Parts: sequence; C-alpha cells; structure tokens
Amino acid sequence: MDQRIERLKEAAAVINDLEKAAALLSWDEETKMPPGGAEARAEQRATLHRLAHERLISDEIAGLLDELAPVESGLDPDSDDGALIRVIRRDHEKARRVPPELHAEMVRSGSKGYRAWLAAREAEDFESMLPHYERGLELRRRYVECFTPYEDPYDVLLDDYEPGMKTAEVDEIFDQLKTALVPMIQAVADAEPVDDSFLRRGLPIEPQRRFSAWALQKFGVDCEHWRLDDTVHPFASSTSSADIRITTRFRETDLGGVLACFHEFGHGLYERQIAPELGRTPLGSGVSAALHESQSRMWENLVGRGLSCWRCFYPRLQEELHDNLGTVSLEDFHRAINKVHPTLIRVEADEVTYNLHIILRFELERELLAGRLATRDLREAFDAKMEEYLGLTPTDLKHGVLQDVHWSDFSFGYFPTYALGNVISVQIWERACADLPDLDEQFEQGEFGALRDWLRDHVHRYGRKFTPQETVLRAAGGPIDPGPYLGYLERKLGEVFGAAVV
Amino acid sequence: MDQRIERLKEAAAVINDLEKAAALLSWDEETKMPPGGAEARAEQRATLHRLAHERLISDEIAGLLDELAPVESGLDPDSDDGALIRVIRRDHEKARRVPPELHAEMVRSGSKGYRAWLAAREAEDFESMLPHYERGLELRRRYVECFTPYEDPYDVLLDDYEPGMKTAEVDEIFDQLKTALVPMIQAVADAEPVDDSFLRRGLPIEPQRRFSAWALQKFGVDCEHWRLDDTVHPFASSTSSADIRITTRFRETDLGGVLACFHEFGHGLYERQIAPELGRTPLGSGVSAALHESQSRMWENLVGRGLSCWRCFYPRLQEELHDNLGTVSLEDFHRAINKVHPTLIRVEADEVTYNLHIILRFELERELLAGRLATRDLREAFDAKMEEYLGLTPTDLKHGVLQDVHWSDFSFGYFPTYALGNVISVQIWERACADLPDLDEQFEQGEFGALRDWLRDHVHRYGRKFTPQETVLRAAGGPIDPGPYLGYLERKLGEVFGAAVV
Repeated sequence: MDQRIERLKEAAAVINDLEKAAALLSWDEETKMPPGGAEARAEQRATLHRLAHERLISDEIAGLLDELAPVESGLDPDSDDGALIRVIRRDHEKARRVPPELHAEMVRSGSKGYRAWLAAREAEDFESMLPHYERGLELRRRYVECFTPYEDPYDVLLDDYEPGMKTAEVDEIFDQLKTALVPMIQAVADAEPVDDSFLRRGLPIEPQRRFSAWALQKFGVDCEHWRLDDTVHPFASSTSSADIRITTRFRETDLGGVLACFHEFGHGLYERQIAPELGRTPLGSGVSAALHESQSRMWENLVGRGLSCWRCFYPRLQEELHDNLGTVSLEDFHRAINKVHPTLIRVEADEVTYNLHIILRFELERELLAGRLATRDLREAFDAKMEEYLGLTPTDLKHGVLQDVHWSDFSFGYFPTYALGNVISVQIWERACADLPDLDEQFEQGEFGALRDWLRDHVHRYGRKFTPQETVLRAAGGPIDPGPYLGYLERKLGEVFGAAVV
Repeated sequence: MDQRIERLKEAAAVINDLEKAAALLSWDEETKMPPGGAEARAEQRATLHRLAHERLISDEIAGLLDELAPVESGLDPDSDDGALIRVIRRDHEKARRVPPELHAEMVRSGSKGYRAWLAAREAEDFESMLPHYERGLELRRRYVECFTPYEDPYDVLLDDYEPGMKTAEVDEIFDQLKTALVPMIQAVADAEPVDDSFLRRGLPIEPQRRFSAWALQKFGVDCEHWRLDDTVHPFASSTSSADIRITTRFRETDLGGVLACFHEFGHGLYERQIAPELGRTPLGSGVSAALHESQSRMWENLVGRGLSCWRCFYPRLQEELHDNLGTVSLEDFHRAINKVHPTLIRVEADEVTYNLHIILRFELERELLAGRLATRDLREAFDAKMEEYLGLTPTDLKHGVLQDVHWSDFSFGYFPTYALGNVISVQIWERACADLPDLDEQFEQGEFGALRDWLRDHVHRYGRKFTPQETVLRAAGGPIDPGPYLGYLERKLGEVFGAAVV
C-alpha cells in the first residue's frame, strides 16, 4: 500500500473522529443535556468543527494530495482508494476556497440569526429579522463569489448539499412537478374530504411508543446498534455505522411521531449499511441530502404508508390504541394516514402538497439571491405563492414565512433536496420492486430484510464512493426523473379518493 | 489585559473543549451508547485525548510560557491569572517530560491489559496477567525515569493524582491509620454483629430510584444542571460546571445504589460549585483525587450515613420500601447502614475497614515498583495481607487480587487517594461544623444549603487555583492529619456497637 495514501487516510480519520465527536455533542444537546450545559456546549462544538476544518484545509493534506496526483490517474476510479483521493480533494479544494474569516462570520451570524428567529416568531415581528436577512444574504453572496466561475449563483449553494447538481436541472424537474401537482391538488380540494378525525385527538403516548419500538424492530432495528429517543424535532444521527441514533416526538393529536420513526429509520439505515471498510474515511456517510431523503421518504411513505405494511402492523396498532382504532377498518385507517389536504405548515404536509411547499421556497431563494426580490418583500411574496400553489393564506408568521429554521441562518440550497428526495425515492423503489416481485407479501408477513439487503447492495454500501448522480444511476437505472413519482402519486390518489379525483 | 495571557487562555480553552468532549464520549459510552459503537468510540476518544495532549506540549504554549515568565513574577500568585500560568506551566512541563512514544505505548498496553484482565477474572487465570503486569511495570518504571531526580520512584506516580504529595507523607499517615484501625477491627470482630438482614434482600429497584431522586433534590440537585443515569459502575462526570452527570446502580440486595448517589453527588457538587469564571481554563476542575474523594465521602458518609440526615430522609424511605422497612426503627436502620464488618471486596467495604484495603494495595504497589516483590508473587502477597489486616482469605481471584480495575493497566498511585480523601473529609467536616453549629438541625429539616455554600466558599470555588496542600490548609485550617478521622470512627463505633467496642 502506498505510504502516502496511508498518511492521507490517517489525516482523514482524525477529521472524521472530530466530526463524529461533534455529532455526538449535538445529539446529546438535543436529547440528554441538562439545559445549563448549553453555553459550554456551543464552545465545545465550535472548537471541534473548527479543528476539523483546519485539518481539512491544512498544508499537510494539500501536500499529500499534490504528491498523490500522479498516482491517482493510475488507480481504478471505482476503487476505494481512487474514490477516497477524489472525495478528499473535492472537500479540501472547496474548503480552501472560503477565507477562514468569512467561514467564521457565517457561523457567527448564522447563530445570531437563529436566536433572532426564535424571538421574531414569538413576537410575530417580521421586521426584526430584516437586518439578519440582509447580513445573511450579503455573506451568502460573498460565499458564492469564492466559487467563480459558475453558471448560476444558486449552483454554488446547492452544491454543498447536492454535489454536482445544477439549478437548471432542479428547475426542470420542479417545473414538471408543479405542472402536474397544482391541478392534482385542485381536484383533491374539490373532492369529498377523507375522514381522519379518529387520528386527531386523544392518542395516548406510551402505546404509540411501544408500537413504534415494535415496528422498528420489524424494520430491522436492534439494541446492539440503534437507539430511539425523544426530541422536539425528530432527527437521525450516528457516531459510526454501528451506532445509529434516531429521535421522534409523539403527540396525542396525530401519528406524526410514529411516521417520524419510520422516516428517521430510513436515514439511519442508510448510515448503518454503508460498507464497514469505509468507516473513519470521508466516504463513510450518505452521499447527498437528496439521496438521504430518498431513503427516509421511502420508509416513511412507500413502505410506511403502504397497505401491505399495515396489513402486518395494523392489528398491533389497534391493540395498543384500542379506544381510538378498535372500530376503524384497515382501509379507513390507510386512507386517513394518506389524506391529502393543503396545510400551512411544511413539515405537516402530505405527500402531494409537500413538494409545492418546497418549490415555492426554492423559487424565493433564487429570487432573493439574484436580487430580484428584496428581503422586506419576502413575507408578501411567500404569502402570495402559498395562495397561488396551495390556495391558503398564512394566518400568522409562525404558519407563514417564519415557520422554518432554514432561513434563520440563510442556509439556502437545502430545501430543494427534500423534493428531489421524494422523486428519487420512487425511482429506486420501482427498481427494488422489479427485482423483488413478492415485496408486498413479505411486508404483510412483517419481513423487511429483502428490501434492506437490496438497498444495502444498490445504494447504501457505496457511501460517498460515487457522485450522487452516479449513485442514482446505479440504483435507479437512470438519471433523476419525476415521472415515476408523479405516476405513484396519481395511483395513490386513486386509492385514497377513488377514481373521481384522477 | 496582557495579549499573551489572552492567547494562553485561548490555547488552554481549546484543550479544555477537547477534554470535555472526550469526557462526554466516555459518559455516553457508559450510559447510552449501543454496544456496537465501541470500536469507533475508542478511536474517537483516543483522537481527542491525543489532540489535547499535542496542544498541551505544543511549541505555541511553550513560547507563550517563556514570554510570560517575566510577567508572572509581577502577578499576585493568588490571582486567577497567576494561578493559570502556574498550572499550565506545570501541566505543560510534566507532559513534555514524557516522550510521545512512551505515552502512546502506555495507553496501548493499558487497554490491552484491561481486556486481558476482564478475561483473566472470568477464567480465574492469574498466570495470564503476568506478561501484562511485567510490561506495565516496565513502562511505569520508564515513565518514572522521565522525572529524575526524585526522592522515591512512587512519588512520580502519586504526583499524577495528588500533585505535590510525597510517598513519605502518605506512609506516615497510613502508619497512624493502620496502628489504630487493626485493633479497632479486631474489637468489632469480637462484638455482637449488627443485624442488617432487612437490607440484604428483596429491595425493589424503582422505589430506591424514586427515593434517590427525591433525596438528591434535597441535597441540591436540579434538572437545569444535573442528570442521574444507570451504569454498571457509578461515577460522576461533567462537560462544564453547569452540566453535571452522576450515575449509580441499584440492586435488590443492598442500598449501595442509594449511597452511591450520595457519593457521586459529592463529586458532582465539587465541579458544580467551581467559580464560573474558571470555566474553559485548566483551573476549572477539582484540584486532586484526594480532595475530590473528600467531597464524595463527606456526602456519602458524614452527611449520608449520619443520624440527623436520616431523621429527615427515613420516613420517605420507609414509605418507598414499606414492605422492607415498615417495622424497622430509625435507630436500627442507622446502625445497619453503618455496620462494620470485614469483607473481601474493597468497593463494598464499610468506613472502618475500607482504609485497610487501600493500605495493603499501597504497600504492594510500592514493593512491586521497587522490585522487592515479583509480579508472580503478587497473588500470595495480596492474600497474606488480607489475612493479616482483615482476617480474611480471598475465595477466588474476583474476590482477591483481580477485583480492581486499577492494576489492569498498572495505574499505580491512585489507590492511596481514596484513604487520604477519607482523612481529609473529616478535617473539612469538623471545620464546617464549627462554623455552622446548627448543621444537625438543618439536616433534620432537609436543609443542606448552608453546608453546600460553606463548601463552595471554602473548597469548591477555587478549583485548581491553589495546590492540594494549600486547598486543604484553607479549608481545614491545617495539613492532612488522620487524628480527626480516627476520632470520628471511634465515636461512630461507639454509636453503632455501644461502648463495649471502644
């Protein structure tokens, strides 16, 4: 083995250890930390991130990459070593483009913006966010300029979450989605509403928790490598592929906590099934935000809102929630958890309307970045698009433009990956279904191992070895394409609302 | 403010962040981590410790200390800045004496020794430990040689836990203890045994947990800054003085879990009450192992095994453990939790016999280090001393020479601090009682705030600002002295066994 590759691996392993330790610090902060620890914890996290960043841009890594340049061309690009050098080079060069002062200032004003956002939401005070929006926008523009030349300034921001993806491609995909979804939603609005009142009140928490633990075990969770905790906002985190942590939040007014378990399981399973030999390298994590989201949405929606899965799960849920569901048929329950109904809050949106929440945000981000929309006009622009796409008018800022954390620190470029994840999830799903024709029968029996294994072999094990585009190609057999997703939504609407709608 | 002091503080803060992050990684490993995470966690912890060590011995810190040498003499030695420079200099110079290869090898063979010890205990196989003992001893001797000149080689090892303490001083203190304790234990062995059978079986866990949470709240624990978890071995940990974590282990066969809560509370309270302005500096932690132990033993024994405390606590405990204690009087309960009775296991020993467990280990460590005892004779030497001091013969290795984790990696020098902590605890306690004459009445009312405040003002707030010796002097009004401790034990034996014994 080339000594220089070994040294590069060692340097990368230290960075990985720092990042994973920082991930644990965050997980602990959200789940276990006594509130008093917050101030010191912020310092500790900042220090670990800073040390990791310093090492990534270090002369040591620069020197090794220079020395390895001639070697690299002789390596099989599909080999672990070839991929490792390529990915470290990419991460290193991107990080080096950004002056440390700008990086630090973005972190600082991001955290100021976050605190201001918490206060502005409470006080219903949009004006107070304007200086933070202005500052954030200015910093993002400076960040974008570090990456000249670019085709579209938004490309630069998108690339941080979806490496290699271009804004023009997203635009095309979103146009197709919008064209199909707006009339679909209109049709639903005119149809007889689905009754889900039995899922809207008095759902006791502990039975939901017991059911979720049981269902997750069926999905493939074991105590040796997983844990489930409560948080305000559900998330998935890991300190290695052998230590996966998911969180959820159960409520008495919906089954969102159960479905969040399914969603976060999808994220967790991706990290869990990355090839162990990629551990402690930058290849050892999910390849992009959209690919990650495709996995979480698959387990939440394609598996977790599917009829075959609930043929196995529903009797157990009925047992746990007997007073609520004892007299509700499987079919009525299935329709209720698949209800389509425009709502103001993105994170509570159904499968169909969710994408329009994303598209409107993507459009506004681009307008703001390009200077075509002033930050002081953001609220009106947001409300106008909500009216246009979903037929709803935000009642207040919490249900409108201030609902998401993402804009508090101007993290532009993340939103589109949610909808791209939806699109990709169905492409991969249809491929898995073609390879595994008896998947429905397996789910009915509570067997999810074949799907897990298929996902491991076709998506998960690669980690960041291939680009997101290559990863989609290998798993789905083609580039990102909204066709299968739209077909799936139409079929589902037919199932839930009857033929009238579609 | 001197720019160089600021830079030194910044450098020290990074080291502190790394160490605190490593502490969280360990806490998580013991309390929350899915077992599968162990391998990656070991790497992560090693990396954080190594980076902290590299920074401590860095040329940057060496340079700043050189530049600050002329400034230092002009600073008030009792000032925070004066203490800071002194403590960083001490830590830096000690760390620099040890070649990185030796440091790394000690960590490596320590962890090998630990795994071997786990296996040797299970297999009842003393022989298998011999190569590890030999290697460990050789490495300790090389470590000692890094610190020439020294009076006694054991001084070097002791100094890592009890800075400035000399073996000869320990020797003198332990001689006094042994002279008084051996006949005391003999007298107890001849006396009518105390009945504690009602504490030996069928104590349900959940009521113990509820009681402990309630009692800890009385002591001063709040959810804002503390948490309590379950572990195999109780310990205290913190990520800052505002985030204190203690652990315990409840069992049905004794109240050890409750008393462990009291013990770990003492450790936690020390860290909790360090002056906030010492946070993120090397001054912001307890000053030595013995001082720390003095605080844990005070809350476990002087408060937590005292009659006045139980006048408040016992009704609640009786309520929780009604089937066990409903008919047991407070006086009988108090005698039972203060029972003196030689046992083979150190961590289960009572207040009187505990010290002899320590003294015999201290004596064996010195003999081994000096080469007067061969490792292959350690088992016999251990058993002989158990017979001599406690009148007991170990039944097997788990109850004998392989019972403690400390020798698995040859961490010599730690054991004596346990007994020194006992001695110091009573010295400080008597001083507090003199200043707060109504302490008993307060405890009876469930009021522990006055003692907490006194400890904060006289011990805790200083952190590492003064040497351990100065800290004892300030808190207890004199140097370490076993007199008060022996007087206390005699009084307690009188209480528990009646005048016959003393």
